[in-house]
Amino acid sequence: MRDPQALVTSLRALVGERHVVTAVTDLEPLVHDWRGRYQGTALCAVYPADTDEVSRVVRLCREAGAKVVPQGGNTGMCGAATPFGEDEVVLRLDRLNRVRHISALDNTMVVEAGCILADLQNKAQEVGRLFPLSLGAEGSCQIGGNIATNAGGTAVLRYGPMRDLVMGLEVVLPDGSVMNDLKRLRKDNSGYAVRHLFVGSEGTLGIITAATLKLFPPPQASATAMTGAADLGQALALLALVRTKLGDRISAYEVMSHSQMQLVLDHIPNCTLPFDRSHPWYVLIEAEDSFATVDLASLLEECLADGFEQGLVADAVIPKSEAQRAALWRLRHSVSEANKVSGISASYDTVVPLDRLADFAADTVAGVAKAFPQARILFVGHVGDGNLHAIAHFDKDAFPSKAEFEEAAAVVNGIVDDATLKCDGSISAEHGIGKSNRKRLAQSIDPVRYGLMLKIKATIDPENIMNPGKVL
Amino acid sequence: MRDPQALVTSLRALVGERHVVTAVTDLEPLVHDWRGRYQGTALCAVYPADTDEVSRVVRLCREAGAKVVPQGGNTGMCGAATPFGEDEVVLRLDRLNRVRHISALDNTMVVEAGCILADLQNKAQEVGRLFPLSLGAEGSCQIGGNIATNAGGTAVLRYGPMRDLVMGLEVVLPDGSVMNDLKRLRKDNSGYAVRHLFVGSEGTLGIITAATLKLFPPPQASATAMTGAADLGQALALLALVRTKLGDRISAYEVMSHSQMQLVLDHIPNCTLPFDRSHPWYVLIEAEDSFATVDLASLLEECLADGFEQGLVADAVIPKSEAQRAALWRLRHSVSEANKVSGISASYDTVVPLDRLADFAADTVAGVAKAFPQARILFVGHVGDGNLHAIAHFDKDAFPSKAEFEEAAAVVNGIVDDATLKCDGSISAEHGIGKSNRKRLAQSIDPVRYGLMLKIKATIDPENIMNPGKVL
Repeated sequence: MRDPQALVTSLRALVGERHVVTAVTDLEPLVHDWRGRYQGTALCAVYPADTDEVSRVVRLCREAGAKVVPQGGNTGMCGAATPFGEDEVVLRLDRLNRVRHISALDNTMVVEAGCILADLQNKAQEVGRLFPLSLGAEGSCQIGGNIATNAGGTAVLRYGPMRDLVMGLEVVLPDGSVMNDLKRLRKDNSGYAVRHLFVGSEGTLGIITAATLKLFPPPQASATAMTGAADLGQALALLALVRTKLGDRISAYEVMSHSQMQLVLDHIPNCTLPFDRSHPWYVLIEAEDSFATVDLASLLEECLADGFEQGLVADAVIPKSEAQRAALWRLRHSVSEANKVSGISASYDTVVPLDRLADFAADTVAGVAKAFPQARILFVGHVGDGNLHAIAHFDKDAFPSKAEFEEAAAVVNGIVDDATLKCDGSISAEHGIGKSNRKRLAQSIDPVRYGLMLKIKATIDPENIMNPGKVL
Repeated sequence: MRDPQALVTSLRALVGERHVVTAVTDLEPLVHDWRGRYQGTALCAVYPADTDEVSRVVRLCREAGAKVVPQGGNTGMCGAATPFGEDEVVLRLDRLNRVRHISALDNTMVVEAGCILADLQNKAQEVGRLFPLSLGAEGSCQIGGNIATNAGGTAVLRYGPMRDLVMGLEVVLPDGSVMNDLKRLRKDNSGYAVRHLFVGSEGTLGIITAATLKLFPPPQASATAMTGAADLGQALALLALVRTKLGDRISAYEVMSHSQMQLVLDHIPNCTLPFDRSHPWYVLIEAEDSFATVDLASLLEECLADGFEQGLVADAVIPKSEAQRAALWRLRHSVSEANKVSGISASYDTVVPLDRLADFAADTVAGVAKAFPQARILFVGHVGDGNLHAIAHFDKDAFPSKAEFEEAAAVVNGIVDDATLKCDGSISAEHGIGKSNRKRLAQSIDPVRYGLMLKIKATIDPENIMNPGKVL
């Protein structure tokens, strides 16, 4: 780029002195990811006030030959929001934080990109509606980032990923022009659905400045159960049975292998198995309903009785109190802690079609057991989405050094990737591509689709100023 | 194009003599739309056997300088499947009619573009699942056309339009390459969602040859009600109330003005109003549930009792028998017939956000009443989707000639379009753009979005060989 200092000066003139950050200490939290896997660098960070200022910032950067790295809450998993060059400007959306419109009647809200996810959940609740996206970072992540990364989280089974919740977008394109496609319409066949290019594009095609989001009636009743199953196939057949009867009411269908459960029971206080004996697999089911007077527990019990008759349920427990329900969920939520205190883990985020999941698990077990006979192989996951975490777990002293463990983890990664692709899965279920998975993406998806992605990037961002070095 | 006869010869060599049609009589049904609004012409029609042959046909056409017009069941409403030139080749998908994979466990099926919609509904039913897309032409339309036009139909309120039912696509691009993106994954963040460009592109970007579709548990219980309402605002407030309690169970929420109901009562035999007195508006509600033992009628009754208390329901009837239920639906389904026998109509397919619907109706009434004091103004529609048909209805002898009626209809069209756009609506709810709405599209949508559409078309189809003169 030609004159970095001149750009900083004109950015300051545009958005105001205090909305451009250049001091190294102030920039520090913005130039690395929160997990500390990527350490980058940037010319400065800019905080525009509104869509018009975003557009002008982009034009100034483009004219100066600088790159633009959009950043929301900086809570991503793959380094997509980290800047990596002295010619890169971090564009923060924090000040675009208005809810422009909200309607319980229409079940929509129009919000700006910098709104914090948890704030939007609250706004929806205030009008008697649910905005269902929910994930660990919800207290600090921004909705623009959620859209740019097509965030997943805990409500995907019932409500779909972020993409399914977006009805319209406002986007500042790399040439500074503003696309206004914020329509609040459930039916609209007026040409190509270009908004879908931006959902999940991780800031490489433009900057999302606002979005129209879907709202839902909030759940008023819920019911929970845990079952034991002889194998993963039975757990999956039970899912089909429960879904046939309960339909969209299923809000969670979580699976754990006994190997995983045993670590929780052994290492986490106050965790007890809710059954007389152990089972190879456990399923945690939760259902919810918008109708308060529906007896959901009885419906769930009816499903499990059918499952028992069909040999899909070895044992089942339906909690009789909130304390019992919480105790079941504690088993599931204690997985990370149990694995951490009991040893070291190499863990992977896999998604495959449901009818390939048992094959995927078998291939993974066979591959890992052969390469590392000393490993415990654990499974835990959101199986309702086809999303299973395979974990190779080792005793703390299994490797003489961290480097040797990393080497082993890479071997496990290769085994899991091979099993995933063999079972028609994806290398990125929900965390995206960013910086971490660029090479694996290029190698793993259909080359014609990849070629089309390259062409689209070159068409929309011919000068490659938007978040360079990410995704593609 | 250079040598049309040489192209026909090479197409015959590729797909076999009897799969290339050139005789005028054989081509006749393929070169006009089923409503007879467009009469076109073509060099020939080709029926390739599989994706590979589709790819080769496209390459041959491209090399010969011919254009390609993909055609499914030819049941579209806007002329998108009609060829308009002696250098245009109709590419029929009829022979790509296999179901490649179906899984009740996974709730997906992978199907080829030429499958008839009704056949796919049956295939899903055979494995205990529902494929919810449903529309008038389902006995002859093809799924590839449904996807290329993002079809709507009667199940949009509960299941969304076609776009929401597509998980993956296989597409032959204008250069003949085949994009395989048929993944059966509910979570997949592996780069740009390019498949969404093809859904609703009406054959202008490539030829959809196969798709992965979502399946659902079939409904096992249903309940119906009709209410009277004092105004459209009350009918919409009742929708919000019913949705809050019943959630996704609402499968139909249809509204009729009394002016429309009166024409049905006056002109269709065996139609009676189910209330003691008339009301300005009527609502027909249907709910369904995948759980057979849920007492849906009681739940619906509970909602209506709440609505009554809040002043949103002037009167209500819940049918006690299938015959009574059918009688309610007959009132709704008799609208077209009643309007046809009683006069002449200018009718429009509008979608606006729900909280603008009452404004849209008021603007339309005011505008039409001013321009045509003699018109009856009728409303009927799928209000759950924001989709309302405004109808200006005249006595049969209101205009001295058809031409004068057409002139009046154009004036009404302008009034409805103005009201639609003022209320943030779309000129095409579900019928698409095709040939009919090209100019209106260019004038009515955001120019930056339109510019992006032009760029994408030029990138993917630089020689403009795919369905020229449509959409853009």
